[in-house]
Amino acid sequence: MKAYKIDEKIIRYTFGKPVNTDAVVVSGKEIDKKEIPYVNINCKENLLITYKMDDSDIVYGLGQNQRGINKRGGIYESFCSDDPNHTPNKKSLYGAHNFIIVEGREKFGMFIDYPGKVKFDIGFTHKENLEISLDDNNVHVYIIEGENSKAIVKSFLNIIGRGYVPPKWAFGYQQCRWSYEDNNEIEEVANKFIENNIPCDTIYLDIDYMERYKDFTVSDKAFPDFSNFVKKMKDKGFRLIPIIDAGVKIEEGYEVYEEGIKNNYFCTDENGKPFVAAVWPGKVHFPDFLNKDTRLWFGLKYKTLVDCGIEGFWNDMNEPAIFYTERGIKEAIDKAKESEGKNLDIDTFFGLMDTFRNVNNNDEDYKAMYHNMDGKRLNHYDVHNLYGYNMTRSAAEGFEHIDENKRFLMFSRSSYIGMHRYSGIWTGDNHSWWDHILLNLKMMPSLSMCGLLYSGADTGGFSEDANSQLLIRWNQFSMFTPLYRNHAAKGTRRQEPYAFEEETKDILKNMIEIRYSLIPYIYSEYMKAILNRDMYFMPLSFVYGDAMSKRVENQLLLGDSLMVAPVYEENSLGRYVYLPEDMLLWKARRYDERSYEVMKKGHAYIDVPLEEAPIFIRKNKMLVLGNPAKNVDSMDNSSVHVIAFVEHRATYTLYDDDGLTKEFKEGKYSEIEIVIEKKDEDFEVTIENFGNEEIKTIKFEIIDMSGNVIEKTVEV
Amino acid sequence: MKAYKIDEKIIRYTFGKPVNTDAVVVSGKEIDKKEIPYVNINCKENLLITYKMDDSDIVYGLGQNQRGINKRGGIYESFCSDDPNHTPNKKSLYGAHNFIIVEGREKFGMFIDYPGKVKFDIGFTHKENLEISLDDNNVHVYIIEGENSKAIVKSFLNIIGRGYVPPKWAFGYQQCRWSYEDNNEIEEVANKFIENNIPCDTIYLDIDYMERYKDFTVSDKAFPDFSNFVKKMKDKGFRLIPIIDAGVKIEEGYEVYEEGIKNNYFCTDENGKPFVAAVWPGKVHFPDFLNKDTRLWFGLKYKTLVDCGIEGFWNDMNEPAIFYTERGIKEAIDKAKESEGKNLDIDTFFGLMDTFRNVNNNDEDYKAMYHNMDGKRLNHYDVHNLYGYNMTRSAAEGFEHIDENKRFLMFSRSSYIGMHRYSGIWTGDNHSWWDHILLNLKMMPSLSMCGLLYSGADTGGFSEDANSQLLIRWNQFSMFTPLYRNHAAKGTRRQEPYAFEEETKDILKNMIEIRYSLIPYIYSEYMKAILNRDMYFMPLSFVYGDAMSKRVENQLLLGDSLMVAPVYEENSLGRYVYLPEDMLLWKARRYDERSYEVMKKGHAYIDVPLEEAPIFIRKNKMLVLGNPAKNVDSMDNSSVHVIAFVEHRATYTLYDDDGLTKEFKEGKYSEIEIVIEKKDEDFEVTIENFGNEEIKTIKFEIIDMSGNVIEKTVEV
Repeated sequence: MKAYKIDEKIIRYTFGKPVNTDAVVVSGKEIDKKEIPYVNINCKENLLITYKMDDSDIVYGLGQNQRGINKRGGIYESFCSDDPNHTPNKKSLYGAHNFIIVEGREKFGMFIDYPGKVKFDIGFTHKENLEISLDDNNVHVYIIEGENSKAIVKSFLNIIGRGYVPPKWAFGYQQCRWSYEDNNEIEEVANKFIENNIPCDTIYLDIDYMERYKDFTVSDKAFPDFSNFVKKMKDKGFRLIPIIDAGVKIEEGYEVYEEGIKNNYFCTDENGKPFVAAVWPGKVHFPDFLNKDTRLWFGLKYKTLVDCGIEGFWNDMNEPAIFYTERGIKEAIDKAKESEGKNLDIDTFFGLMDTFRNVNNNDEDYKAMYHNMDGKRLNHYDVHNLYGYNMTRSAAEGFEHIDENKRFLMFSRSSYIGMHRYSGIWTGDNHSWWDHILLNLKMMPSLSMCGLLYSGADTGGFSEDANSQLLIRWNQFSMFTPLYRNHAAKGTRRQEPYAFEEETKDILKNMIEIRYSLIPYIYSEYMKAILNRDMYFMPLSFVYGDAMSKRVENQLLLGDSLMVAPVYEENSLGRYVYLPEDMLLWKARRYDERSYEVMKKGHAYIDVPLEEAPIFIRKNKMLVLGNPAKNVDSMDNSSVHVIAFVEHRATYTLYDDDGLTKEFKEGKYSEIEIVIEKKDEDFEVTIENFGNEEIKTIKFEIIDMSGNVIEKTVEV
Repeated sequence: MKAYKIDEKIIRYTFGKPVNTDAVVVSGKEIDKKEIPYVNINCKENLLITYKMDDSDIVYGLGQNQRGINKRGGIYESFCSDDPNHTPNKKSLYGAHNFIIVEGREKFGMFIDYPGKVKFDIGFTHKENLEISLDDNNVHVYIIEGENSKAIVKSFLNIIGRGYVPPKWAFGYQQCRWSYEDNNEIEEVANKFIENNIPCDTIYLDIDYMERYKDFTVSDKAFPDFSNFVKKMKDKGFRLIPIIDAGVKIEEGYEVYEEGIKNNYFCTDENGKPFVAAVWPGKVHFPDFLNKDTRLWFGLKYKTLVDCGIEGFWNDMNEPAIFYTERGIKEAIDKAKESEGKNLDIDTFFGLMDTFRNVNNNDEDYKAMYHNMDGKRLNHYDVHNLYGYNMTRSAAEGFEHIDENKRFLMFSRSSYIGMHRYSGIWTGDNHSWWDHILLNLKMMPSLSMCGLLYSGADTGGFSEDANSQLLIRWNQFSMFTPLYRNHAAKGTRRQEPYAFEEETKDILKNMIEIRYSLIPYIYSEYMKAILNRDMYFMPLSFVYGDAMSKRVENQLLLGDSLMVAPVYEENSLGRYVYLPEDMLLWKARRYDERSYEVMKKGHAYIDVPLEEAPIFIRKNKMLVLGNPAKNVDSMDNSSVHVIAFVEHRATYTLYDDDGLTKEFKEGKYSEIEIVIEKKDEDFEVTIENFGNEEIKTIKFEIIDMSGNVIEKTVEV
């Protein structure tokens, strides 16, 4: 074991010779340290980390995962998995985020930087035992100290690098479906949004836009003049966002395939031949994204579509998902043939069924695939969790070459710690299940802990049919997530906001407009979190120290000023909410309709009619609201609104920038500092403008602790 | 259409010539009535019932099903299904309970007496539309009037006949696992309960006790002297409860098979030959339980085991579940062979996968199976939902012949309305998922509405591994259900109360002891519900008329005096609870440890540590508590406790009987009438005993509205 001081709060303990994952961007200096604090680490053949938890210890972390914000009680396995059935027993989802925080008797964070399978038993087998294990003795373990969980996250985010910043329009509402089949259908969708005056920034191209699922192709039949169509749609106000899949179709004459073969860019099998698997296009090879030459090559392929006017993408199937391989399907078919005409006993029968059930995403296939990383041949199984991450890194590296100052929208299905520098994620193929709204909510702060701020769920649910109520309630949460996208699978009921009853459409329009009005705040909080290495969504306990805040699993803090507490149960017309301090409840039905209630610290039951999204403004905090428009580009925020809930003094820094370039990195951004201070019976408002050229007027509604509303208009 | 007056509140509308399901035991008289109230019914080719719902309408019912107590928002399909994966999208579970109540603008109940597939769209497709449809025009529709939902249920229970009464010992704790393999393992389990002083009444024999899964056989190897072992175990205090499956193994020399063949007792195929399917024993025939001769024959077979000392059974696999048929497996294998060596396109690949996935419980197989019911050949698909019901009726009819005055424990997996006269149900193969505790809770009142009072879930979850916390919290609900059984599947973690940490064992022991102390009340409420055609579990709204009570989906009323509100979320140390009136909270940690809190009407957040079960006693109501023992037979209730929460006056009728015979039907039961009345600063207790010979002393703890505890001891 070697120890490296990464910074004042973080020491890395290195066992053996781990694969370099590039998760952490600070390498640190070797120090002389034999003792590891907090935990017991045994790393001879395998790594085993143990920790004895107190009854009151909370364990945060693990990013995209099942169960609660508090991860106690579960077994988790980091092994990026394309499993659409997110039932509570699933141990892996699409991402691998081996970062946890223990908060209780001791407070520390831990990041297990290992790209293969890692198992976390967090008090499942024995309620007091935290055990982390993996089948290798080459691994980095980072121990992160801090005075509380928030500080520990900040330190962690500090060493994994600044997060991805999407264009500002990516904070608008987005509409997807697998698939809008051709330009006619897309235009129809766009027109529906226009006719119904529902704001929308993007429409997605799922796999069917391609020619036979070949990456970087566009079906001529579906899109006879793609570039012009992209332009036409942009003129209408919609950006088109195509999907890119990991597998490259094996097809003579297909440029991507042929270049990949010629330059040995594909993952290989045991014999050094390109590894063959089947996914959407049928037989494919997988680009070897762990090889930096492959990354650059593939990343530059996005230019094909960028040249058509495309400004954003989503990377899919990059766990990588495998539908089948020759090996797997042969094994299954052989087993079927063996069974033919036999009087199958039940074990043989279930064996046969299991063989077919296990054809997908089979470990045997992952073990038969190889990478070439910096000249070293690595078995895929051992570095599995790096694949999607590096596919998306490839795109980001490509974008840097294509237009180094332009922000592209990009999010990925699979991820690993560090990928947040290159893109966001969506939370994968969920279901139109009520439970999945709450799962969505619980995942968000855990993703923020890993820097994956640009994130959100398939609103309304991907698989299965949604009903109108589910869609409304889900929107009432997603309207707060940075990535706000409605998406549904082939064969399911239409799920666009206008696809239901008139009343549903009106409610959804109102919710989407409220989202647009929230963008000045959401964008400001997002950017400040990126620049300051903070979280966007936080558990209540990260800010409030009381015992009850530690228990709350169905409310979140969003940035500096807001608490969100959506309704996520069918037929509920209200919910319980815990207020760690006095807050102002805005019963938001329309962006410009204000109905407030001062909520006292403690527990409350609030009525939440279907048409209402409860928005809580914290004490001595404020919310800046802009003016909805058909899309983000069209928003006119020369005059904005502020809702403030003030006892003594509230301050807010409103960040803004051009929303399109990376110049914010050079400090090219504006800030408006707003101070509201109670003076006798009135409030004094002070505004300092550092470079904001858009906002001219701010209309204040200042609510005091008794609910009195004081209105003021101030010129900036 | 013909109309029949069943009673003052119920009219049956008969379309065509429906199959007689024997669901309803009152036939009624034909009346002249052309108009059907409340709903629109169209029954030409198919039946379509429509009703326009108000926003505030609630729809109760559908027995064993997914979603809420309020069924609005879902699509449901009555088609008894062996699908262990109870995810929210499942439209059918094991039972078919086509009884609903609409409560709102109008109040009425409806029972669709049809034994095939029935679809209920309760505001899913359009939020206001209730649509019930089925593919036939031979059907009875019962319309039930009543002043409220409770009255409607009572009327319905009145026409479907008195419910099943298990022996009193069936209200004890029960332990199951698939499977305790032999007499040694069972004795080991029994000894563990004894060593740990954990009460337990029964231990279950899952499928492996049989000789190659043959009904009514016992493996000689596992149980070399079964009768003696049954006796030995009973002497230790445990009754053994064997499983009986629907399918009869095809095996020359096996008596049940040979008799069935000889007498044409089996369901047939298109050619009139016995229908062949494969389940646990491999190839089987299904007894034709719709044929009354078959029922009697099969029912008497239970005698084989009764003669060994067995006093209870559970009937399984009686949807009937089909693992595969020759047809299905051949189709799948043929498809696999066709695919051999081919470059499968994705549609072909998924088609192949689906073929294997759909081998189980395939409609084609159900459509190829036939019954002989009263000399009429019926296609199984059209009467599918009667199968499990009639298997269990067969057992009950057999028991009547074996020992007409003895109560046998009996519950079934599959069921239809009417089966409650013969047995209870358990809620099938659930999972060790937190969600399934709540699903369990929500199902219970809906089952009570169908008369299926003796019911409960596989506590701790059948599939997947449980952790100790889940098991504790689940017990804290199941301790209130009439059937209180812990069960887990092969391959899962051990789930007996002693299988976890010492602390968990202690908590579970305490909870099980509390359950035993509750038995006088639980049994009394159960029996009064049976005799008075009432429910055992009720939604709050069935008793309280306020708006909030209509929303509550996570609390239940249990009989006359109690409200239960368990914790069902991981790591929760408390929960919100709604009190429709002032109640007394007993924070139950041990049966003999009393810590009370007077809870005021309204909303509250209560702390609920892991070791505590919250029990709410309603205002002016009382709870009678007995004394736990190793099993029900051993309970000494010569002295019982009463906890009463009294403002002015509380009355309670404590029912009891011999617990073993059916003589209660002839009025052979005892009642103790207890009246507590406030007199100045004191309470006056009056007791009238109608035949109870066990209880000599009642120790009262009377809590007044301020929480003062007045103790009294009264001789009976």
